[in-house]
Amino acid sequence: MQAYLDNSATTRCCDRAKERMIRLLTEDYGNPSSLHVMGKTAEDYVREARRKIAKTLKAEEKEIVFTSGGTESNNMALFGSLAANPRNGKHIVTTPIEHASVYAPICCFKEQGYEITYLDVDSEGKISLSQLKDAVREDTALVSVMMVNNEIGTVEPVAAAAQVIKEKNPRTLFHVDAIQGYGKYRIYPKKTGIDLLSVSGHKIHAPKGVGFLYIKDKVKVKPFVYGGGQQNGMRSGTENVCGISALGEAAEEAYENFDQKAEHMAQLRKRFLCGMAEIPSVLVNGGRGADAAPHIVSVSIEGVRSEVMLHALEEKQIYVSAGSACSSNKPAVSRTLTGIGLAAKYLDATIRFSFCAYTTEEEIDYAVAVMKELIPKLQKYTHH
Amino acid sequence: MQAYLDNSATTRCCDRAKERMIRLLTEDYGNPSSLHVMGKTAEDYVREARRKIAKTLKAEEKEIVFTSGGTESNNMALFGSLAANPRNGKHIVTTPIEHASVYAPICCFKEQGYEITYLDVDSEGKISLSQLKDAVREDTALVSVMMVNNEIGTVEPVAAAAQVIKEKNPRTLFHVDAIQGYGKYRIYPKKTGIDLLSVSGHKIHAPKGVGFLYIKDKVKVKPFVYGGGQQNGMRSGTENVCGISALGEAAEEAYENFDQKAEHMAQLRKRFLCGMAEIPSVLVNGGRGADAAPHIVSVSIEGVRSEVMLHALEEKQIYVSAGSACSSNKPAVSRTLTGIGLAAKYLDATIRFSFCAYTTEEEIDYAVAVMKELIPKLQKYTHH
Repeated sequence: MQAYLDNSATTRCCDRAKERMIRLLTEDYGNPSSLHVMGKTAEDYVREARRKIAKTLKAEEKEIVFTSGGTESNNMALFGSLAANPRNGKHIVTTPIEHASVYAPICCFKEQGYEITYLDVDSEGKISLSQLKDAVREDTALVSVMMVNNEIGTVEPVAAAAQVIKEKNPRTLFHVDAIQGYGKYRIYPKKTGIDLLSVSGHKIHAPKGVGFLYIKDKVKVKPFVYGGGQQNGMRSGTENVCGISALGEAAEEAYENFDQKAEHMAQLRKRFLCGMAEIPSVLVNGGRGADAAPHIVSVSIEGVRSEVMLHALEEKQIYVSAGSACSSNKPAVSRTLTGIGLAAKYLDATIRFSFCAYTTEEEIDYAVAVMKELIPKLQKYTHH
Repeated sequence: MQAYLDNSATTRCCDRAKERMIRLLTEDYGNPSSLHVMGKTAEDYVREARRKIAKTLKAEEKEIVFTSGGTESNNMALFGSLAANPRNGKHIVTTPIEHASVYAPICCFKEQGYEITYLDVDSEGKISLSQLKDAVREDTALVSVMMVNNEIGTVEPVAAAAQVIKEKNPRTLFHVDAIQGYGKYRIYPKKTGIDLLSVSGHKIHAPKGVGFLYIKDKVKVKPFVYGGGQQNGMRSGTENVCGISALGEAAEEAYENFDQKAEHMAQLRKRFLCGMAEIPSVLVNGGRGADAAPHIVSVSIEGVRSEVMLHALEEKQIYVSAGSACSSNKPAVSRTLTGIGLAAKYLDATIRFSFCAYTTEEEIDYAVAVMKELIPKLQKYTHH
């Protein structure tokens, strides 16, 4: 038995996306900028993907800019929007539990003289809307809050946050990192009042190396990459046609039979949590109920170091992450786990299970059984 | 009969690269940042690609940074090196015939107060080393010269240029856009004195959406994309493992039986030029002999507009570019063609044929025959 429960690190490419990739690599391999029919065909694939993705968001096609992935989407959202709106002020509001691809660019702005307000998060990782309201000022150029936390699965109240922000300062732009949320939730940024929304392909069964940034119509964003003027000048460089088209397929698929998939993942989570509840000294981090994403479960285990647990599970062919896998395997204390005030003894004793629509109940049961068996053994080992 | 002669716009993915892609999309699909074996396997693929590419350049593995393509490589080279070395001065030397992904970032620096010197190019598109020598000053932070011009195939004397630059000012960094040169020429940047070298995957039969930047050891470059700290912090974002690995395969293949392939392409060029020589009122642009890349032939045809010629060829299933296809099909006067002083009547009457190692003599003969047949007809049409 094998259980890949690291879907928030990356997912297996779905068959539709894969088939599309294969076709575009050696058959319809034209450059969309070429004026002949092979270029036109390539352009059509890009347009089709744009249309399919826009549809999932109830957005306009022109509001979608394809990027090389979630990290570029976040970088472009931050660097591009702040560079384009210098008169909106030099104040940024964010949270301490953002992904590094938001956190690190914001550190660059701090060096450039921007003032940064980090909102507090509660023990489940949630921001407070009243604190947000107080934080947004006349000179707040940008608020950046992630939709679903990548380490503990907390779902932030981004719709309510949008309202609070816009009421306080209509010029303040609202960026949402939806890399762990897109495909798992229905997101309608326009309706919600989100100006910028980042998505990554490889988290939703598209290939790595592609993603997109939703930019609300009329929101000014400077390009992040300069050159041949592709994508209306917003993102130069030959379009990654195979990746983009595969992303279009994966996005469409993610929202097909959506309720069924969401229910399936919710059931997986419930089943997994029931299992965990039976193991002493296991703590589940993050939100409960609607505040908890169905596909991410963060578990702290007293007396068992993350890496030890991870490798013990690996021996049983269960693949999980120690904290978040998106941060280049350097051991560092998690900002998210410290942010929620997790006791020191758990900081280095936390692992993340992450599911997808293809995860099976058998995989969950297997993981639970192995955890039940391993934890007492590993704890004994640690105590001696 | 069909002839894809637009290989400088983009190439068909080679079988090795394609097979590798397929495997990594659904089998070995781990995230290199994951600590378990699937992450380790993914990391190994990235490392293998890095090793293979470094070998083709006689470079060190740590000198290769993977990017989302040639445009990002050029952007990173320029923005990253100038940001990292602010004390080297605010003067840039370049040419008027660079690709837009070099030209446009340099325009950004101009806005920021940098002084830009554009070297002249002669009627074949070549820079003058003595003018370069005069241009490099105490405060010249960067020289950027492309290796092979994407529109007319001129090969710039980058090795001699490196010597001239370093003798005049050892602190001046030398960036070479080798996007049309890599895979067609043996390039050893370290030995040559090149500090930064940009390469794109999809020009050498790897997929779109991946490329790399060679950064000479100890040359300071700031990251262009910030986040999880992947690639030693030089390029954050989950590595595009499938694209990177496919690029490694394509790069290795490009330099296998290299002399044979180079000779094949040289013969194709010769054969094509012989054919063109038989057609009246056809002008071949760019260098001659060793100064001309084997795979790019720019042809100006008196009295036949580029687009008319392109679509007439397209009807015969011959695919070429009007000028360069890398600039998002907007009709604009080519900086390269004006740079070489091409007569006004030819500016809008130029098309580019570009070959690859897989191009056949039959394709060349077919294209020549069709050109011979079409040109007099189209000219007659224009004259009336």
